[in-house]
Amino acid sequence: MSIPAPAIASFQPPRRTLMGPGPSDVPRRILDAMVRPTIGHLDPAFTDMMEQTKTLLRYAFQTENKLTFPVSGPGSVGMETCFVNLVEPGDKVIVCVNGVFGGRMVENVKRCGGVAVLVEDPWGRAVDADKVAAAFAAHPDAKILAFVHAETSTGAQSDAAALAAIAKRHGALVLLDCVTSLGGTPVLLDQWGIDAAYSGSQKCLSCTPGLSPVSFSEAAIRRVRARKTPVQSWFMDLNLVLGYWSGEGKRTYHHTAPINPLYGLHEALVMLAEEGLEAAWARHRAMHEALKAGLEELGLSFVVPEGERLPQLNSVTFPAGIDDAAARGHLLNDFNLEIGAGLGVLAGKIWRIGLMGASARRENVDICLRALRAVLG
Amino acid sequence: MSIPAPAIASFQPPRRTLMGPGPSDVPRRILDAMVRPTIGHLDPAFTDMMEQTKTLLRYAFQTENKLTFPVSGPGSVGMETCFVNLVEPGDKVIVCVNGVFGGRMVENVKRCGGVAVLVEDPWGRAVDADKVAAAFAAHPDAKILAFVHAETSTGAQSDAAALAAIAKRHGALVLLDCVTSLGGTPVLLDQWGIDAAYSGSQKCLSCTPGLSPVSFSEAAIRRVRARKTPVQSWFMDLNLVLGYWSGEGKRTYHHTAPINPLYGLHEALVMLAEEGLEAAWARHRAMHEALKAGLEELGLSFVVPEGERLPQLNSVTFPAGIDDAAARGHLLNDFNLEIGAGLGVLAGKIWRIGLMGASARRENVDICLRALRAVLG
Repeated sequence: MSIPAPAIASFQPPRRTLMGPGPSDVPRRILDAMVRPTIGHLDPAFTDMMEQTKTLLRYAFQTENKLTFPVSGPGSVGMETCFVNLVEPGDKVIVCVNGVFGGRMVENVKRCGGVAVLVEDPWGRAVDADKVAAAFAAHPDAKILAFVHAETSTGAQSDAAALAAIAKRHGALVLLDCVTSLGGTPVLLDQWGIDAAYSGSQKCLSCTPGLSPVSFSEAAIRRVRARKTPVQSWFMDLNLVLGYWSGEGKRTYHHTAPINPLYGLHEALVMLAEEGLEAAWARHRAMHEALKAGLEELGLSFVVPEGERLPQLNSVTFPAGIDDAAARGHLLNDFNLEIGAGLGVLAGKIWRIGLMGASARRENVDICLRALRAVLG
Repeated sequence: MSIPAPAIASFQPPRRTLMGPGPSDVPRRILDAMVRPTIGHLDPAFTDMMEQTKTLLRYAFQTENKLTFPVSGPGSVGMETCFVNLVEPGDKVIVCVNGVFGGRMVENVKRCGGVAVLVEDPWGRAVDADKVAAAFAAHPDAKILAFVHAETSTGAQSDAAALAAIAKRHGALVLLDCVTSLGGTPVLLDQWGIDAAYSGSQKCLSCTPGLSPVSFSEAAIRRVRARKTPVQSWFMDLNLVLGYWSGEGKRTYHHTAPINPLYGLHEALVMLAEEGLEAAWARHRAMHEALKAGLEELGLSFVVPEGERLPQLNSVTFPAGIDDAAARGHLLNDFNLEIGAGLGVLAGKIWRIGLMGASARRENVDICLRALRAVLG
């Protein structure tokens, strides 16, 4: 025993108002669900809950996809699960890049040995459907179109239905990042024809971070089953994960599921079903309108043009002369308010103000505007 | 909107006594920590807690490795993080297989493009050091020795110090699975010369499942930095993860950490430091002795020979004529007691009775023996 026991006390986090790009405020009801007694991951009571979670997720995603479940990891693991299963070495994938997360998709394609064809749009703008059509015309052998529905790094929303339709005309699968949109703005997997989608627990679902809901169409599953090469990740290989999550016949142990966090996600989804998707979308929209009015009054201008703006993630440029880090520090320390900094090329240039899930409420709008007024005034 | 909202109520799990191979009973104090207010993953208060968690993990692992942190995923992700970073295509890895988890290591090596050299021992026995020495003699170019310290599928413990010493003599890195041993029996990374280790939150640390503590030596980090090929996983690439967890200079966003589960792990580690490692090891040993006496009285015999037995995981064969599934169902339904079934070649042949973390206490031993007496009597 060469390393002595450190004297460290229990952690007591401060109470913040979370209005960054996620995590969002977690309702007491979800936290209460998370601390119900831990049971085993093969307990029949737990596997019943897994089936309910799948049903609830199908509602959230608006899909009948049987293979709809939460990956035991954050959104980045959900993203990687989609790519490692669907992309084989040499496969051409058209990837739309209009922010950080499109770039991360490109990185995923490369690490799977795929060939990424980039469709680039300015950060802060939606993906241009004409460019996607042109990319397919130039690369008719592309097997997948991948794009981010709601770019968390900029606050821009793309027209998923239109983009997916182009891919369908070319017989390509559609892979969708809906991390920031699920539960906040319409995500209609079946209507749009999405083949693989991933999201996160900590955005508009208002759960704690660490789980990534995913959904795969029958066409996507056929693609996975027809692979010539094994999936490079053992943990993310859907052929194996299915034995645990499919619910068909006997469940096979794959990994130990994160029991208590899954209680939390179940509760978050029960709450979403109780409120109803349309009501949740309308609430996010209404809070955005209220915040927008206040932000414009303060002289802050939106990065994203009106028609392409995400209600749940408001990117604004701050006035010249404001020290980015100092101002956000002021908000955090004096108002216990977290807002998001810019990412990538927008670092130091914008703030991202989230109105996601339980954070999309009048009280938060007021707290935010009051604090910004004090800091900018 | 084609999929209507399902009418599903909040989940109310039963209260179980968890004496399987993990998860183990989660103390109230850890659950209470998990429901403290969610804060942002870049909040200075949170990053302070991350540093404390690293310090506490260094104590648990008995290492001064700077790169010691919890991976945001279950133990299988910790395992894969070790392999994808350290194994390059063509690398020869000697893997000891004496149960399910050694087999999973082989699968990981293959998916990284490595060449696995198998050292096989009977399930229920420790790894034979002579065989490992012979494997190195036959394969002096092996770059890594990988083995499971505490085989969760059988309850056998191997002599990590002896095995690591053989690898060191051949200049190979040592990769250790200590999922089931950390906190229950001595794990001494620096003294043994371990280069990469992974564990789980839900075994002898008694936290909820979903996090995987890992630790890497300087030699391991040099190996990662000297790679000729990129790490195949974006999420697990230590070069990227380090930007968030290293604590050197500015923290870079990598993924959204599972905030509340990390509160729980921090608390579990604070409790371990308060009790002290030696006291925790002694408690696991004492509870094992108490359980063993009772099990033998009931006519159950141990799978693993005395000197190779894990105190925290007791594998026993059940009497002829007992219906495995029915008996475990009886324990679960009538006594709210979970014990583990056999895995792999031992499925249907053994039971695995865990005494891990908070489950390693007199009350649990009594509950288990009373229930088994009723079911077997």
